Formats: sequence, structure tokens, C-alpha cells
Amino acid sequence: MDKTASEPLEHKRHTLAHLLAAAVLEMYPDALPTIGPAIDNGFYYDFEFPAGTNIAEGDLHVIEERMRKILPTWTKFTSRELSKDEAVSSFSSPNGSNKYKAELINEIISKNEKITFYKAGGFEDLCRGGHAENPAKDIKPDSFKLSRIAGAYWRGDEKNKMLTRIYGLAFDSGKELKEYEAMIKEAEKRDHRKLGKEMDIFEFNDDTGPGLPLWLPNGAIMIEELEKLAKETEFKAGYVRVRTPHIAKDSMYLKSGHLPYYEESMFPPMEYEGGKYYLKAMNCPHHHKIFAARARSYRDLPLRLAEYGTCYRHEKSGELFGLMRVRMLSMNDAHIYCAEEQFAGEFKAVNDMYLEYFKIFGIDKYVMRFSTHDPKRLGDKYVDEPELWKKTEDMVREVLVGAKIPFVEVPNEAAFYGPKIDVQVWSAIGREFTLATNQVDFAVPRRFGLNYTGKDGKEKTPLCIHRAPLGTHERFIGFLIEHYGGNFPLWLAPVQVKVIPVAEAHFAEAEKIHKALRGTFIRSEVDLSNDNFGKKVRTAKLSRAPYFIVIGDKDIEAGKVTLESRDGGKVGQMKLDEVLAIFREKIDDRK
Amino acid sequence: MDKTASEPLEHKRHTLAHLLAAAVLEMYPDALPTIGPAIDNGFYYDFEFPAGTNIAEGDLHVIEERMRKILPTWTKFTSRELSKDEAVSSFSSPNGSNKYKAELINEIISKNEKITFYKAGGFEDLCRGGHAENPAKDIKPDSFKLSRIAGAYWRGDEKNKMLTRIYGLAFDSGKELKEYEAMIKEAEKRDHRKLGKEMDIFEFNDDTGPGLPLWLPNGAIMIEELEKLAKETEFKAGYVRVRTPHIAKDSMYLKSGHLPYYEESMFPPMEYEGGKYYLKAMNCPHHHKIFAARARSYRDLPLRLAEYGTCYRHEKSGELFGLMRVRMLSMNDAHIYCAEEQFAGEFKAVNDMYLEYFKIFGIDKYVMRFSTHDPKRLGDKYVDEPELWKKTEDMVREVLVGAKIPFVEVPNEAAFYGPKIDVQVWSAIGREFTLATNQVDFAVPRRFGLNYTGKDGKEKTPLCIHRAPLGTHERFIGFLIEHYGGNFPLWLAPVQVKVIPVAEAHFAEAEKIHKALRGTFIRSEVDLSNDNFGKKVRTAKLSRAPYFIVIGDKDIEAGKVTLESRDGGKVGQMKLDEVLAIFREKIDDRK
Repeated sequence: MDKTASEPLEHKRHTLAHLLAAAVLEMYPDALPTIGPAIDNGFYYDFEFPAGTNIAEGDLHVIEERMRKILPTWTKFTSRELSKDEAVSSFSSPNGSNKYKAELINEIISKNEKITFYKAGGFEDLCRGGHAENPAKDIKPDSFKLSRIAGAYWRGDEKNKMLTRIYGLAFDSGKELKEYEAMIKEAEKRDHRKLGKEMDIFEFNDDTGPGLPLWLPNGAIMIEELEKLAKETEFKAGYVRVRTPHIAKDSMYLKSGHLPYYEESMFPPMEYEGGKYYLKAMNCPHHHKIFAARARSYRDLPLRLAEYGTCYRHEKSGELFGLMRVRMLSMNDAHIYCAEEQFAGEFKAVNDMYLEYFKIFGIDKYVMRFSTHDPKRLGDKYVDEPELWKKTEDMVREVLVGAKIPFVEVPNEAAFYGPKIDVQVWSAIGREFTLATNQVDFAVPRRFGLNYTGKDGKEKTPLCIHRAPLGTHERFIGFLIEHYGGNFPLWLAPVQVKVIPVAEAHFAEAEKIHKALRGTFIRSEVDLSNDNFGKKVRTAKLSRAPYFIVIGDKDIEAGKVTLESRDGGKVGQMKLDEVLAIFREKIDDRK
Repeated sequence: MDKTASEPLEHKRHTLAHLLAAAVLEMYPDALPTIGPAIDNGFYYDFEFPAGTNIAEGDLHVIEERMRKILPTWTKFTSRELSKDEAVSSFSSPNGSNKYKAELINEIISKNEKITFYKAGGFEDLCRGGHAENPAKDIKPDSFKLSRIAGAYWRGDEKNKMLTRIYGLAFDSGKELKEYEAMIKEAEKRDHRKLGKEMDIFEFNDDTGPGLPLWLPNGAIMIEELEKLAKETEFKAGYVRVRTPHIAKDSMYLKSGHLPYYEESMFPPMEYEGGKYYLKAMNCPHHHKIFAARARSYRDLPLRLAEYGTCYRHEKSGELFGLMRVRMLSMNDAHIYCAEEQFAGEFKAVNDMYLEYFKIFGIDKYVMRFSTHDPKRLGDKYVDEPELWKKTEDMVREVLVGAKIPFVEVPNEAAFYGPKIDVQVWSAIGREFTLATNQVDFAVPRRFGLNYTGKDGKEKTPLCIHRAPLGTHERFIGFLIEHYGGNFPLWLAPVQVKVIPVAEAHFAEAEKIHKALRGTFIRSEVDLSNDNFGKKVRTAKLSRAPYFIVIGDKDIEAGKVTLESRDGGKVGQMKLDEVLAIFREKIDDRK
């Protein structure tokens, strides 16, 4: 869902779904309308077309024109309440009744809700409402577009009949629609699956298993750089690191509650030594065990245990998508065990870390989705700690407001064991990604019997903050590929510099420079192929290396090299030491 | 086995096993002797004692004295050949026959071998020979010692009767025996399980599972430092890194041959999506898939794929031992794909890397155990590539001889797919560890259909070198704990420096210095407890931190600090910048 969509835009999109159905039924009177909601970039409507009627993408513009023809006649919506029989019969045609609408109507009846119909122009539909007040005036004819056709099972269940879904895009204005289309086109060019292949970043393989990426050398470099960033940042922030196995016995997951509550998201067990071992789906239970491995006192808190741990989760094979939906998750994980009075400070520090990362990666647009509890559901949906809920939610809110971090508060969507913050960011081309989730945990430390001796000598249970600002390598690198369009900054670029000799006479010098660069851990490549100079420059540019160094007669005479940048063109002729100084500074500062 | 034990020492140890049996039978005429071999530090003999006879460790010195009393009478061994019946009846006593010796005699008969008996003094035993020529002269009375008693099943099978095993230590001289005992005593003090707990390095837990270490913060620091060392060393040596999942489908392991040949060493499968997924027991198949993920030409070779990959292997729970025998193995792995003509150079480079590591860790004593094939077993025990076997074995031998690396050649112990080198090292206190295995692989690249286009345009199969100089984190850190006795060098020490204020007046300055140290990524701790100065110094020394810094009035007045070293005592008063420079140099050079 696009969290920034205004309520009225959702109404327009919903209205357009009605309009689509009206147009389709004018053109195909035997088609059966089913459901048609607003979605994050427009709307869709699912139809059963009579056997023999094939709708192709080429037909969409005709339907779209019909929608534009009807639109001026829709100046308002009226609604009325119907009885069940009236409602069902209103969808009957000479060919019989509409069993889809009948099913929906029966569901409404079974929930003791009212059956409402909404009508605009000559078209009436079963509907809960939420439309543009005056479609003819509110909806600009150039602000929408039918985009594609897809098959969709009735109610998403593959046991049901396959219906025909027609998708439309819709925005407040034609300009916004065009911008969105341009963004999608750019996103296709930057598709992380395409660039990931082209740039040798990752690969999938049937024998290793779907959803389990093999990180090729260039991807492994990015992983190493991200881990280096995380480790440095976390060292400075007083975290300590741990390493834990990728498996554990069922007894641990029974204690944590992953079994049975999270079992369907876990890989199936290995039957071993008369027991069951599971691949870990989260690192927390292992970290709790490390907390519990020593007697802890208030002096040890906050204890911040960090691990780039690899977890495994079941995802349906149909839902796997490049690096965005995978079965292996290398998480920038940490658990902060703290006393209640330390919570606000720790939570603020976590937020500061996010902001530091956003700055490094040039992420300008982000929002924290702050999910809170519902006091009425305490003891049922939420762990029964009314004061802790109130206190921590207040503290979270205070920190977010104080730091002027954009956030939306979503009541009644917290986790069972505490408030939750989902971090959403927008890539350079304006696409939204959910990168990470932070959670406050009142409940699990108690389940694990974690405690520390307080200043007063009494045993207390710590609070636990789960946090993962860089999310998983899989999703974050997927995001970064799109965000940078493959043009990674120097510190992150798999190949940082290409050394290009102008001719064969300069090969030896080029190789010497290449080796000097690598001697200071710069990821340099040298092009000693038979290609001519022009081709070598083109190859270097295509590789997306942030810099290339040219070596020719004049450079050798001057004891210098010529540095060119991917983003800024020629930097100039300079000594190799100067190049190294430029590189070192940019790399150290992650500019 | 102690590879340095001379043949005669093994003869003496074997002789002492006879002598032990002679002494026991003089003292306990109803005891049944079974078998008694030489072992790496001495010998043992297993007996069935009559019901009611309890031998305790306290009895050992009496038996030992009896051995010393008999020894001067043993001036030579004589041997004779017996028939089966003669042999069996020679072990009969008024209480019946010796069924253990009868079983051994039957086995010898079934193999069509001769039954030989060896006699010294008044004691004769079934034996294949191999004794000291003149025990009375060759064996020094102070060079052996009975060390302990243990239960041992007949032939190691728990279905059989439990016998009583008496162990003895034996060396060429009393001096060597004493040195060995001192080494064992020191090894107990340095026991990695004891120090690992004391120093918060690792921990095991029943819920996470036996044999699966949880690396505590101090252990994780050591892991990070070792990985940093490996990554830097491998970058300089032209390796590229990859990252691969911890699981794969059965189809991959069927291709690699791990299934079924290695199945019993693997964890059982997860039944998933109608197939089977296994935890990886080795990284090679994943790396082969990465080789295969792109078309390769001779220009891409050698391709050196490195990964600190975590593998999982089944070990019987009774055989788990601290970090030395575990079920999780974090391997310093790499696979080098090369053309035949590149093999010698690559193998030499691998060896050089070993030597570099030995230098860093102060490993002075090491030997490579070079296992070669047996030409008679080609096509049966060994892949049928006679020329490749000869060529690569010759090259390996040449490199080892050329680099003056101590090695022993062991015929007919190679792997199925190529020659193998086991690397054995001795810790600072003289204990032997097998750290790593290198293998040359002719066969598996072909099974995986790996190939590259040669200069001549033809498809060729690369050779593959499997190498892991730092072994696994588990075993290597276990080794390092003993090797350094917990007194790690600065670069590897979990806590590098402790900052100690002389009194409360110096707390603020101490904390400032502590923060400055951490700002340059030095692992510093500051002691702001209420303990007095003397106690703080003792605590710092006990912590095994390589340095501590004292801050008192005189230091603050002088704008300096006082640096003391764990190993060398007071270094002196100096500016913090000077301390940082000393630290930085030692850390960068890993001195």
C-alpha cells in the first residue's frame, strides 16, 4: 500500500473500478462482474467472461475509451439497501445468476451486515461505499489508464475458477500518471534481477534450491562492505558480536514459541538423535541463550548482542521474487537487553543509527510505521502488561517526535509481545521498500527466564529490543541495485577502478599501477586484452566502475596517471599517491 | 600417532606391554590377558580379571615395581611357530581356556597366516613381533610409568564384555618421560574447554544442541580477527570471495557423490516441497555451481573462490570433544580451479600461505603428511588417471622438497579423487594437532561438468585444489587457546587494553582515554569499579589483556599515561598518541 495516497485518491481509484465494470458490461453483457478494489497504484476488476470471449491487452484501449465516454455521465453516487433476494436477483441475467456476487452476499448476511448497493450513471454494484463524490468532475480523463490483463483465481484460491483480471493505473493527475509510468520504466531498467546477472552479483540454481541465492564474487564484495560498515558502526555504538549455529533443537523453539506459532514459516525439521533439529528462522532464541549463559547484573546492561546471522524461512515457491522474497535471510541483527529506565536512550540510539545509514546511502525519503497495541485486547492479542505498553509506546513516540522522524501510527497492529516499527524507504527513483522491522519485546525474555540482578539486589527481567537497520543482505542489496542503478559509490563498488594502458607499450606500467592499487586493498582491474584503446574505455564505462585510470606516453613521462570518473568525467593527471589519497578518503568516509 | 617416534621406541613400548602382562599374571594368575599394543605415548594391555578382583589406580605402582623387578631378567626375545591347538591350549589354565586369545588365533588361521609366539624371561605371548632386542639393556627403568586404568570393551564393541585396560607411558629416557608429563600437566592448565569458559570464548547449551558452539563476544572477536587475516591474505593472493547457502537439494549431493558415499557424516534431510534438502557438509559443491554459473575461458583461470563457510557434520555424541570435535565447522575454505600447467604454481602459493600463517602464529614445528595413490589400485580405489596422478604427485613432492617443508609420504592413503596433504602442527607446549587437509581433485569437476575454453578453443576440465590453511574456527581457536595459554597477542586478544585509574579522582581522565582508544577501534575496557587500585591491577592481569594503562596524578600532570604490558612489565610513561602508535603497529603487523 502506498501510505502517502490520500483518502480521496483511494476513492477515485475505487470509483474507476466501478467505471471499468460499467464499460466491460456495456461491451460484454454476458460477462459476470465479481470484485474490484482500489490498489496502491490504481485499481482492478475481476470478471468471468463467457466461454469463447477472449480479451487481449490490445482490447484494453477500447475499454478505456468506453470508460472515458461514460465518465461525464457519472455526476454522483446514490446508495440503497437491499434484501438478500433482491440483491442476488439484481445480478441475474437471461444466462442465469452471478454465483460470485451471490457468494459475497451470503457472506455479508452471515456477518449480520447490511447489503448496500451504489449506483452511478446506469451502473449499480454491490459495494461498501467510498467513491469520488462527483466522478465527472473529480476524475481527470487523462489520470487513468488500463495497464494489463492477468488470470486470477476467484478469492485467490487455486481450487477455484480462473477469472480475468483487468488492471488500471490511476493518480490524481495525468502528470502524476506519466511520472509513475516513467518511474516503472526506469525501475525495469534497474531491475535487480537483470543488473544482478549483468554485474555478476548473484545467481540462483535449481540444484542448490529456489530462493537460495549464490552470491557471486561481486555480490560477496558488497556483502563484505556492508558487514564492515555495520561492524564499525556497531562497535562505536557499544555493541558486542556473537556467532551462533544455524540450527537448534525443537526444545529451544518450543520455549521461544516459534513452535508451534511460527512453524509454517520454518523449514521442516531434521530427525536427529531421537529429536528434531530446525534451521533457525530468527536469531533471537540463540541470543537469549547467550544472555542466559552468564549471570548478569545491572552493570552488564545494556547488553547489545549483534550478529549478521543467516536465517532460513519457508516462502511459497510462487512468491519467491529475486532477492526480494527469498528463503535465506542474512540479517543485520542485534538484540539489546536493557533495564526499563534505559529503554528510551537505547531506542533513540537505534534511531540515530538508522539516520546515519540513511545519510550514507542517500536515502532522503523514509517513514517509520509505528504499530501500537489496543488496550481492549490486552491479555488476548497482546501480552497483559498495560503499564509497560503505555510507557514504551510513549517513549517511542517521544523519540520519534523529538528526532523529527516522519512516522505514522497504526493502532492495534503491534506484535503480541510489544510495539513494532516497520521502516519504509523510497529508492532514488521513488519506489517504496520495507527494509527492516524493529520490535520491543516484553514477553520472550521472561519465557526464556532471562534475568539480571538489579541495583537493589533483586532479580529483574530485561526488556529486549530487536533491531536490524540494514535489514537482510538479500533485500538491502536488491534495493541498492535499484537505488544506484548499479552505479555504486566507490566504497561499495565491486570493481573500484579499471586501469587502461593506451597501447601495448604501456602494459608494464599499467600492471605496476594496478598492483600498487591492490597493495592498498583497492579493488582494481587492469585491461591487458588485445582490444584497442577506445574499446577498452567503452568496456570500462560499461562495467560501471566508479573510476578508470589511463596510462599513456605523456603519463609515463610525467610520472603520473590520468584519472577519470564514471560520474564526473576527467578528473585530471596526477601522481598515483594523489589518486590513492582521493580514493582512501572517499572510501573511509563512504562518500 | 606420534610421527616422530622412532621405530625402536615403538619396539620398546610393545616390549613394555609384554612386561606389563608378565607382571600382572605373576600377581593375578587367574587374570586373562587379551591384547596389548604400543600407542603414541606408551602402551596398554587389556585383561579380564576374575570376578571379585578389583584393580585400582593405587595398585599401579605395585605392578610397576614388579615390572622393574622382572625387566633385568629379560635379555632377549625368542620366537616359535605353533599349531592352532597348541596355541589355544597354551592359554588354558585350571579355570578353563582364554576365549579372547582363542578368538584371535582363529582369526589368524582364517587369514592363512602363521601363529607366532614370542617369549622373554618366563613370559610367552601370541604376537607378531617387533620388540626391543635386549629389554634389560635397551629399556631404562625410569623411562616408563603405569599411568591409569580404564574400562574398555573387547574389540571396542559395546556388545562385548568390558575389560580392564592398564595404560603406561614410555619414552626413550626418564628425562623425556618427565618432559611429557610436564607437557600434559601444562596442557591441562591450558585446556581449551576450561579457558574457553573462564575467558568467555564459547559455550555449549543443551537446547541449541551438543557439538554446536555458541560463540560468546570474546570468541566472536577472535573469529572476526581470524577472518580479517584470511581475507586480507587471500585478497593479496588473488582470491575472490563468494557466499553460499547452508543447505542444498539432494540432487546436488547426488551429483557430487556426497550421497550416498558421505551420507553417514551428514545431518539427516529435511523433507521439503516434495524433495529433500540437506545441510551442507562441505562447501565444494556450492563453489562448483558458482564456477559453472558463467562460461569460463583460460583467461579466467586460476579462479580462486574463497568462503568462510559453515558446514554441518554428524559426529557421534560420545565423540564430541570441546571445540576439537564438533558438529558445526566454520571453514577457512577455498577452491582453486586451474589448468594443469598452473597446478605447480598454485600449489606452491598455497604452501607459501601456510608458511606465512605459521610465522604469524609462531608455529615452529609442523609436518605435511602427503598421501599418495597406489598404481595397482587405479580404477578401483583411485580414479583411473595414471598420468595425472603421477604428474601432480611429482609436482607436489617437488614443491615440498624445494620449499624445504618437512613432510612424510604415505603411500596408498590418497583420496579417491587425488593426492591429499594433512597438515600437522605442534602447539607451544609440544602437543600435536591436525589442523587442515589440502586435496587435489581430478574427478569431481568432471562429475559437475565444469569446463573452460582453452587457448586452442577446446573445452577442458579444470583441476581443483581444495585448501583450508586455518582449518575451522572451532579447531583452530581450540588450538590457539592451548598454544597461547590464553595469553593472546595484541591483535587477537578479545580485550586489548585495560584502563585503570589510580583513584576516583582519575575516573574522568581514564574514561576519556578509554573512549579515545575505542575511537580508533582498540578493544579497551575501563575499570570504574569501587575496587582499590591493587585489586584493579590484579583483575587486569588475571584478564590476560596484553596491556594495561594506569592513570594517576603524575600521569595527568605530565599529560601522559603509564603503559604496562602483560608479558614484559612496565613499558613506561608516554603520550597517548605514542601508545596508539605502538598498538597500531603491533596490530597491523600481527606481532
